[in-house]
Amino acid sequence: MIRKTLPLACSTAKIPWSRCSNSDIADAVNSRKIPLYNLEKELEPDYKRAIAVRREVISKYVAPLPNADTRRNGLESIPFEDYDWDRVVGQNCENIVGYVPLPLGIAGPIIMDGKEYPIPMATTEGALVASTHRGARVISQSGGCKTLLLSEGMSRAPVVELDSLEEAGRLHDFCNEKFPLIKEAFESTTRFGKLKSLKCALAGRKAYLRFRATTGDAMGMNMITKGVDKALAFLQQEFPTMKVLALSGNYCTDKKPSAVNWIEGRGKTVLAEATVRADLVEKVLKCTVDSLISLNVDKNLVGSAMAGSVGGFNAQAANAVAAIFIATGQDPAQVVESSTCITTMSKVGNDLLISVTMPSIEVGTVGGGTGLAAQRGCLELIGCGGSNKETPGANAQLLSRVVAAGVLSAELSLMSGLASGHLLSAHMRLNRKQK
Amino acid sequence: MIRKTLPLACSTAKIPWSRCSNSDIADAVNSRKIPLYNLEKELEPDYKRAIAVRREVISKYVAPLPNADTRRNGLESIPFEDYDWDRVVGQNCENIVGYVPLPLGIAGPIIMDGKEYPIPMATTEGALVASTHRGARVISQSGGCKTLLLSEGMSRAPVVELDSLEEAGRLHDFCNEKFPLIKEAFESTTRFGKLKSLKCALAGRKAYLRFRATTGDAMGMNMITKGVDKALAFLQQEFPTMKVLALSGNYCTDKKPSAVNWIEGRGKTVLAEATVRADLVEKVLKCTVDSLISLNVDKNLVGSAMAGSVGGFNAQAANAVAAIFIATGQDPAQVVESSTCITTMSKVGNDLLISVTMPSIEVGTVGGGTGLAAQRGCLELIGCGGSNKETPGANAQLLSRVVAAGVLSAELSLMSGLASGHLLSAHMRLNRKQK
Amino acid sequence: MIRKTLPLACSTAKIPWSRCSNSDIADAVNSRKIPLYNLEKELEPDYKRAIAVRREVISKYVAPLPNADTRRNGLESIPFEDYDWDRVVGQNCENIVGYVPLPLGIAGPIIMDGKEYPIPMATTEGALVASTHRGARVISQSGGCKTLLLSEGMSRAPVVELDSLEEAGRLHDFCNEKFPLIKEAFESTTRFGKLKSLKCALAGRKAYLRFRATTGDAMGMNMITKGVDKALAFLQQEFPTMKVLALSGNYCTDKKPSAVNWIEGRGKTVLAEATVRADLVEKVLKCTVDSLISLNVDKNLVGSAMAGSVGGFNAQAANAVAAIFIATGQDPAQVVESSTCITTMSKVGNDLLISVTMPSIEVGTVGGGTGLAAQRGCLELIGCGGSNKETPGANAQLLSRVVAAGVLSAELSLMSGLASGHLLSAHMRLNRKQK
Amino acid sequence: MIRKTLPLACSTAKIPWSRCSNSDIADAVNSRKIPLYNLEKELEPDYKRAIAVRREVISKYVAPLPNADTRRNGLESIPFEDYDWDRVVGQNCENIVGYVPLPLGIAGPIIMDGKEYPIPMATTEGALVASTHRGARVISQSGGCKTLLLSEGMSRAPVVELDSLEEAGRLHDFCNEKFPLIKEAFESTTRFGKLKSLKCALAGRKAYLRFRATTGDAMGMNMITKGVDKALAFLQQEFPTMKVLALSGNYCTDKKPSAVNWIEGRGKTVLAEATVRADLVEKVLKCTVDSLISLNVDKNLVGSAMAGSVGGFNAQAANAVAAIFIATGQDPAQVVESSTCITTMSKVGNDLLISVTMPSIEVGTVGGGTGLAAQRGCLELIGCGGSNKETPGANAQLLSRVVAAGVLSAELSLMSGLASGHLLSAHMRLNRKQK
Repeated sequence: MIRKTLPLACSTAKIPWSRCSNSDIADAVNSRKIPLYNLEKELEPDYKRAIAVRREVISKYVAPLPNADTRRNGLESIPFEDYDWDRVVGQNCENIVGYVPLPLGIAGPIIMDGKEYPIPMATTEGALVASTHRGARVISQSGGCKTLLLSEGMSRAPVVELDSLEEAGRLHDFCNEKFPLIKEAFESTTRFGKLKSLKCALAGRKAYLRFRATTGDAMGMNMITKGVDKALAFLQQEFPTMKVLALSGNYCTDKKPSAVNWIEGRGKTVLAEATVRADLVEKVLKCTVDSLISLNVDKNLVGSAMAGSVGGFNAQAANAVAAIFIATGQDPAQVVESSTCITTMSKVGNDLLISVTMPSIEVGTVGGGTGLAAQRGCLELIGCGGSNKETPGANAQLLSRVVAAGVLSAELSLMSGLASGHLLSAHMRLNRKQK
Repeated sequence: MIRKTLPLACSTAKIPWSRCSNSDIADAVNSRKIPLYNLEKELEPDYKRAIAVRREVISKYVAPLPNADTRRNGLESIPFEDYDWDRVVGQNCENIVGYVPLPLGIAGPIIMDGKEYPIPMATTEGALVASTHRGARVISQSGGCKTLLLSEGMSRAPVVELDSLEEAGRLHDFCNEKFPLIKEAFESTTRFGKLKSLKCALAGRKAYLRFRATTGDAMGMNMITKGVDKALAFLQQEFPTMKVLALSGNYCTDKKPSAVNWIEGRGKTVLAEATVRADLVEKVLKCTVDSLISLNVDKNLVGSAMAGSVGGFNAQAANAVAAIFIATGQDPAQVVESSTCITTMSKVGNDLLISVTMPSIEVGTVGGGTGLAAQRGCLELIGCGGSNKETPGANAQLLSRVVAAGVLSAELSLMSGLASGHLLSAHMRLNRKQK
Repeated sequence: MIRKTLPLACSTAKIPWSRCSNSDIADAVNSRKIPLYNLEKELEPDYKRAIAVRREVISKYVAPLPNADTRRNGLESIPFEDYDWDRVVGQNCENIVGYVPLPLGIAGPIIMDGKEYPIPMATTEGALVASTHRGARVISQSGGCKTLLLSEGMSRAPVVELDSLEEAGRLHDFCNEKFPLIKEAFESTTRFGKLKSLKCALAGRKAYLRFRATTGDAMGMNMITKGVDKALAFLQQEFPTMKVLALSGNYCTDKKPSAVNWIEGRGKTVLAEATVRADLVEKVLKCTVDSLISLNVDKNLVGSAMAGSVGGFNAQAANAVAAIFIATGQDPAQVVESSTCITTMSKVGNDLLISVTMPSIEVGTVGGGTGLAAQRGCLELIGCGGSNKETPGANAQLLSRVVAAGVLSAELSLMSGLASGHLLSAHMRLNRKQK
Repeated sequence: MIRKTLPLACSTAKIPWSRCSNSDIADAVNSRKIPLYNLEKELEPDYKRAIAVRREVISKYVAPLPNADTRRNGLESIPFEDYDWDRVVGQNCENIVGYVPLPLGIAGPIIMDGKEYPIPMATTEGALVASTHRGARVISQSGGCKTLLLSEGMSRAPVVELDSLEEAGRLHDFCNEKFPLIKEAFESTTRFGKLKSLKCALAGRKAYLRFRATTGDAMGMNMITKGVDKALAFLQQEFPTMKVLALSGNYCTDKKPSAVNWIEGRGKTVLAEATVRADLVEKVLKCTVDSLISLNVDKNLVGSAMAGSVGGFNAQAANAVAAIFIATGQDPAQVVESSTCITTMSKVGNDLLISVTMPSIEVGTVGGGTGLAAQRGCLELIGCGGSNKETPGANAQLLSRVVAAGVLSAELSLMSGLASGHLLSAHMRLNRKQK
């Protein structure tokens, strides 16, 4: 019986788990002799075994619950073998029990800025890849799309408190006037991070300091947090009574809807546009340039205005963003702001000029989930895996352009589907009337 | 050579692919004899082979591109074997090349409404599961959390045009006064969908008709779209000049930030709250009840107000929502609105009362990605897989409660981390001063 | 010397002021024997004298300040004679020193719903009346505008606290299910107020109860507050632990920008539209229908979307609203929400179809400033002074329509000015190029 | 008969009106021989007569309408005599028929930054002056308030179109990199205007150029518009294909709710704070510091968050802003953005620390309505009439501080009223329970 041999203080020494069965270790967890989250540490480097044990623990845990068999079967249908857990443990997940596979499709390739790029999309929403593919094809047949990376910079905004309104005002002015000094402090912590701006917003004596920095090929939240910490230490010297209330005061704004991101940008601010040939709009997309332009006003502009949207002036940007994000190892919670987008349409000659403007695409090609094999594979397929040695940051920039191009494709296709549906229903109506 | 025998019109008859090599079929695709997206159809039921061929096509496609080897290796690192493609094809993805695995961790179990539930989270963001787990544990040790499902109803809002302001006004009034008739038309298409409300917003002669319906255990977008279509046909009879411009006019609002969801709700409106013991706040969370309450005001209320947020009055709701959504087969693009949340904190006695209010959790336990094995497994582990036979809708409701409980846990934990970081840095500051 | 005879406790008995000079009374105020704000009460019914004394007090007060002469002259240039203070005291203002005259111009008359109405506007912004007048004239020459009063109801939203989430949920359901009982309580306090809806929004255990009621010809804030107070007393019986935190919890929302008003409406929800003849657009407005439509998209839709506006999808609605409000005795602070407006333009044949949609026009024709002579005069000029005896509420409804028609006129005119300015600058540019 | 002698082309020569009666001239207007709006020009410099004639025209106009007598009486109750029309004509109003008097009260004086200032308020809302006065008094008794002018700059944002995405991007970069050149062009048109920043936002190929400039003591819209016009001419040279679509593209944003003003500021960004003694809170304001702080969270933060407000995190800022604006000749339509405000409360020792943060107070002390006698009088009473000769801009700055101090006073007082009302109702409740 393993239980007898378990030391009381399990943190002082490793147990010789090799001599125990998985079931024994599971019992040790269930009797709280070792914490469930510590299995990987206890059994390293055999992470697969750690996960197998955790599954056994959970399997035992659900036994007395209602529908225990269904639950156990559920657990068993979650795969965990044949996966490189070494890359995951300590980096991407805790309390691991396996992995969830998401189907991966490829839309395109789309011609973007003169070259072809595949658009990898991980999704369970049927029709999304096909729809994006259709848009990408029509755009490519029309000569492709162009993109514009307008600006870039990830942001982090700690909230600090001063002990008087004067001091708060002095901090505000200091941030403007002594920016180079703060920048120096910030950049002392990082090779890639370059502080681009610092915006100090006051609410009474509380100051929200929005640091914005380029972060090479990383999405950059960690990089910037380190820089901010150093910059705050520097500011602390100048403002001895300043109290740092939290490293993030929600003025960043990370993973929440906010006007500050919409107006100031976060991550990459990217635009993409294409001139789509009128004949393709009619033959392939089954609608007309005029109907698309008109629907864009009624739905993406007026409809979203009526709905009280800030930044949601599009048809389905989030669909494309989420699918590309998951495929390429980005943080899916950042879909919230990365998918803000305004889609515009107008006529150029007889053709359709369509554009998407996306101020807050937050992506990286190193760090986070980008190191996992399949996700890294998707990045490499695009041609932007890892850090760009020659031009640091160029890989993440390319990825942000592909995201915008994917969104452009998805917008064109869905809007066409809606516009032609309109024609279709009009036809049906006309037919009905004949009866 | 297969190419010679390829029929010109590939749609008229199936090729006897069994006699060809994968490479041959890939050539046929590359020479545009069969479309890339049609491989599953051509090779059914051998979907794995279809995918293998597509990979070969792409492998050949990237050959002349720069860094071809890296790209090919990238492709090869995307897994596609040992997966039940039968469930995916025609339902969840197109142009399939494989799948992307996302690590799955389990937070909790959390005691919610008197019972224990595991919180499955698929994520690549290190620390998220551990953080949520910590929150869940402290909440459970304090007696657990309570949830409240305030209201429910998925929504779809077509935009229609009337030929005069009077007619638009008449439609508006008709929607109010003849709601039972519209409801009848809507519900004739569905066993589970029940139309709960219909809100007609006008912008000039354009009307945005926001139908909101309960949809059983499904997330419900398809169910409601069918019902809306029928209801529009009914309205068309009463308003012969009405033109349906699009089945969605963005007043729904799906996958975009919007005040209408924040104020009216979409999917499930769920609240969760817990009274967390002061001693656990101090011992486990390493901060104080007062510091948490104060930080909640400074960050989640004032900070988000300064940032111009509508619905983002929380610390990291999107993190928990995204991870649970992906684990359980939900649509990750709907994280945009499902993660809107206001977190409140106050004192009850000496303890912390924390709540999250989430008006738009859009979830289902049937349809979409919920039928895939691992995702279904996660649902079953919670105890809400598939449709609830006894009480249709109860499984999706339970899932929405678990989402809220997960968010509550994640909020508590991150806020504590920030609050104690503040103490920590204060300590450091004090130490530096001594020098 | 009056000072000697001044009683110590001035509240117990009136002083025989008739025997004192103004200067004496001013001295009594300055020596704090009587409060400055109490002069009207002390000297009633001679309010003019009370004001004259207050001016003397202030005149003495500024004597030792820098630039005393300028200040005194400033005070003296504020008129106070020949005004019916009897109507003002105790109703419209305190600490009165005089009045501020605002120039009043008349735009129109505009043909609205088949009849002619003058649009009185009090403003100091040169060109506003002329601009609105130009718009009104072109609209009238095109056959006039139509209006639609879509819905109405002033709102008030107290915030209450329950002692558990369950109770909060129970209150939410009670508000829906027992609405008739709450309505009965509400309406017991008022002859004109009719409770139309009650929306209960929860944030944790706090409930925001948005009562919305029609209020006859009054703007209605007082009427509804009385009703709410009664309804709360009724709810208190059902929910003994309910604590009323404040009679207004900002979910009303009064005098602040808010999506809830934009989406739910407040006061009157009114639309106005006109079909403007193409030839008039060109001859009088000096631009083209196409240029107007295009500019409306670029400025009022996309520009406001970029600016992160909720409800500000117009060119200058606030200008017209503010001027008409001040002319007719409305509350100018309510311009904030009353001026939210979306302006749409499209083509009907060759002509321009322009509309304004205004969800929150808060007006009354009784109460507030509507009883003052000049303001009442403006209302009577329109034909909607005081309460409508035959159809209570019809006067306030008419006023709201006139506001919308005024806004429609102002929108048309300013947009034309901008669009033709564009042509003008294009001409200048072309000319410059010739050099 | 005057009509016979009227020249056909009335624009070529002045009629010898001195020989005609008012009624004759009115007839000439009604027979469209001279336009109604031209009366001032025809009769100058006798503007009073012009207005008298216009009133007669209108009087005749209403004669055939229903309730003609009421209308005529209404018109007659609008004063127009004894007013200096010379200052108004050609500057402040057109189609003049008289003026509308607004009662003027004085709140305070308030001790602000160590000096005393009266707060003039023109209003018809009973209790507003008294309430603000109460707040100002308690603040002054507590030692007064402090203000902080954080930044300033009026803004104007034309929308221009480029003929490609590249050019749009080039314009964006040019605005950043060549700012000094653009500034030079801008400032060549004005002695007081100093261009502070230029923010270029793109939506596809359309660029919204938000110029922000200090404008001395003027509110500055005209000054900045001239500067923008010049700057655009300069940009036109660099970007020959640039088309100016409109001088305002709503990204300014003037007189509409918008996040861009909330986040970037417009006009003056001003904060005011006061530490209010606990004993005064209890004795004078009849509530407690804790109840105020708690209510501020429930109402001004959570309530407004629930309502989907951007910038409306206060109780009644618009009331004070509107009243002071009208008293001092500001543009009341700008109350929309000038009243955005976040009110915070916290505890300092036992006392209340209250602050208001107002990013967009748009005021001037020259131009607009500030030249009219009474309005100018109010400015002089404060000590900020006209332009400041020594420090240009200082008068407008002082006015913005007084606005903030007035808002601070009004916030404190209303919040106290609500908080004590809560106590009151609690008392009532307790009493009822005893029965």
